[in-house]
Amino acid sequence: MNYYDESIKLHEENQGKIQIESKVKLDNIHDLSIAYTPGVAGPCLLIKEKVEEAYRYTSKGNMIAVVTDGSAVLGLGNIGATAALPVMEGKALLFKRFGDIDAFPICIESQEIDQIIEIVKNISPGFAGINLEDISAPRCFEIERRLQEVVNIPVFHDDQHGTAIVVAAAVINAAKYTGRKLAEMSAVVNGAGAAGTAIVKMLNDIGITNIVVCDSKGIITKARNDINEEKRILSEITNEYNLQGTLLDAVKGKDLFIGVSTANTLTANMVRDMASDPIIFAMANPEPEIMPSLAIEAGAAVVGTGRSDFNNQINNVLIFPGIFKGALRVRAKRITDNMKLEAAYALASIIEGNDLKSDNIIPSVFNETVAEVVAQAVAKAWEREVDQAGNNQ
Amino acid sequence: MNYYDESIKLHEENQGKIQIESKVKLDNIHDLSIAYTPGVAGPCLLIKEKVEEAYRYTSKGNMIAVVTDGSAVLGLGNIGATAALPVMEGKALLFKRFGDIDAFPICIESQEIDQIIEIVKNISPGFAGINLEDISAPRCFEIERRLQEVVNIPVFHDDQHGTAIVVAAAVINAAKYTGRKLAEMSAVVNGAGAAGTAIVKMLNDIGITNIVVCDSKGIITKARNDINEEKRILSEITNEYNLQGTLLDAVKGKDLFIGVSTANTLTANMVRDMASDPIIFAMANPEPEIMPSLAIEAGAAVVGTGRSDFNNQINNVLIFPGIFKGALRVRAKRITDNMKLEAAYALASIIEGNDLKSDNIIPSVFNETVAEVVAQAVAKAWEREVDQAGNNQ
Repeated sequence: MNYYDESIKLHEENQGKIQIESKVKLDNIHDLSIAYTPGVAGPCLLIKEKVEEAYRYTSKGNMIAVVTDGSAVLGLGNIGATAALPVMEGKALLFKRFGDIDAFPICIESQEIDQIIEIVKNISPGFAGINLEDISAPRCFEIERRLQEVVNIPVFHDDQHGTAIVVAAAVINAAKYTGRKLAEMSAVVNGAGAAGTAIVKMLNDIGITNIVVCDSKGIITKARNDINEEKRILSEITNEYNLQGTLLDAVKGKDLFIGVSTANTLTANMVRDMASDPIIFAMANPEPEIMPSLAIEAGAAVVGTGRSDFNNQINNVLIFPGIFKGALRVRAKRITDNMKLEAAYALASIIEGNDLKSDNIIPSVFNETVAEVVAQAVAKAWEREVDQAGNNQ
Repeated sequence: MNYYDESIKLHEENQGKIQIESKVKLDNIHDLSIAYTPGVAGPCLLIKEKVEEAYRYTSKGNMIAVVTDGSAVLGLGNIGATAALPVMEGKALLFKRFGDIDAFPICIESQEIDQIIEIVKNISPGFAGINLEDISAPRCFEIERRLQEVVNIPVFHDDQHGTAIVVAAAVINAAKYTGRKLAEMSAVVNGAGAAGTAIVKMLNDIGITNIVVCDSKGIITKARNDINEEKRILSEITNEYNLQGTLLDAVKGKDLFIGVSTANTLTANMVRDMASDPIIFAMANPEPEIMPSLAIEAGAAVVGTGRSDFNNQINNVLIFPGIFKGALRVRAKRITDNMKLEAAYALASIIEGNDLKSDNIIPSVFNETVAEVVAQAVAKAWEREVDQAGNNQ
């Protein structure tokens, strides 16, 4: 039986993957009287008095909305809100399992930006954070930005930032392992969607500025007039030497390849054209841009993919549980660039000394310390920012 | 410690009352591969192919949205969406405990009818039913009606119909106990909000047509020009003898008093003015329209209230778990009048023979057979309607 069939069986046998569980008992009239009427008026009135008390008296403080419009689900494309439900339930499982956070899927029928923002804003009272998921680019950028402006809880588009932070952690460790200084590294990012765009910004934040980005039509340059606003911004902050051409031209002499594109776009010859001991993170799913064995044969010093059956899995689950765990702990109102940066350093720091090897650049998803280490770094980063802003956050 | 204080303590100690629970294990990479990527694409594609498959492969089929805008919460009034959260979580507990149904609170910031409808419609893909809760009248009528027109899952405003069905069941049994025929009974309903309006319609459905309704200004008549559209409709289907005046005038000679109004509006003298052996359901919360001991002293044959510390508690939890359990089982697209009626008869039927007594007119909320008995009646009623409609439902 393959993964698809096994998964179908699992989903059918359990009728989905999540359920609602009571945290209190309801065995007699007295239980009903304090969990529900008339007693429940007590906490209601305290929250009416001061709305933040919802964090104290309700499940809000540990509850995340996993929001999608089903427009860009896995590699399946625009399959719609209902068909996205198994993925969103899966995400909710991961929140619980790896972050001890309650998360609930909100699958939105509309794919209109204004309406999605309005809907999520309006249902936000019950949640302490919003995890945007599988929303197509470039719509996801505007939705995240504008939604964060109208709610007072963190909004985090995991496909962008989760991926970018894990990649940044992997790059930090790969640079250390290959003896490179981040500021001196050159990189190619293949793919300029949600993840590619966020990765470029994170690479900048860890000190890598020599970056060339390719989309399916080749290198992104200022001269191209077939690109959207987000790619135009990318063209201004990347490609400082104004390279032209295709991925073939882009990879030449580069230290680092990051693929968030499609299967088999990187050949062994292209790897050989890169700098010596190149670092390859080929994250196309399910087939990577190049198979790890082929990349290593062609001279790669470090190879990572998105897959669990190869070494160095670049998996968002290493980050989003800790990001939200930290943010919820300090009731952060948003996830700042600094919090993301500190999350990347914290994740990288988990692999120390001689444990850092070609095939152990990034922790396993089942390393139980990850979420807490990331959470502490994220919480600290927020508190520092609040302090610096003189409580003006 | 009073109920309020105990409730505050309970809510604080547990940080709310509900959490998300996983139905599947995530212990290793293989578990991840079938609960999440890549395997999860399997069920996603089946649902994309045929959207109803969501009932088979996701938690949708057993998941109810408990929706409020916080505009009429308990007796507290318009306390807003966030302050309503403890009540909505409580409702979710009741769904789980008494119906084995998963329910999740959706607290909506907006109080605009159009927007509420749009929001709930758009988040409906993840749910098999919508329980509207604590939305003020007359807004609740329009929201329920229009929302049901745009979604293909049942919408049920429990404050209206849940209350009305339990009242109807209690009336059926009280009539039986006092040897009355429903068609010959006369009734006063005090309160013309969400519950009062629904109760009048349910009383009609069980055969009681001689009904006078009062609001805070007195008897509702066709001549009154200070009433909203819903009350105008009430004026047309009630008060056939065109009574004028106050509650004092309305109760004279009546067999049945139903109060969904405010404390102490029914006096012992008014009870004495009713027909002999009158039936009193005084459901104002927390103080009833008349205390049971006083009503019995004044000659009442049967007295019920909304309170758990008196006999004959008229509690919605006797109905909404079974209503949804039945509706979900047959994937009913709405809750029809027939389903409500059959639910009332089913609930009444649970008390048989000599068990039917003045102080045992309606089952206890902890009678574990209730939800299933109601569910079976509701499911059967839907299936009969589908059959009669030639599958045209």
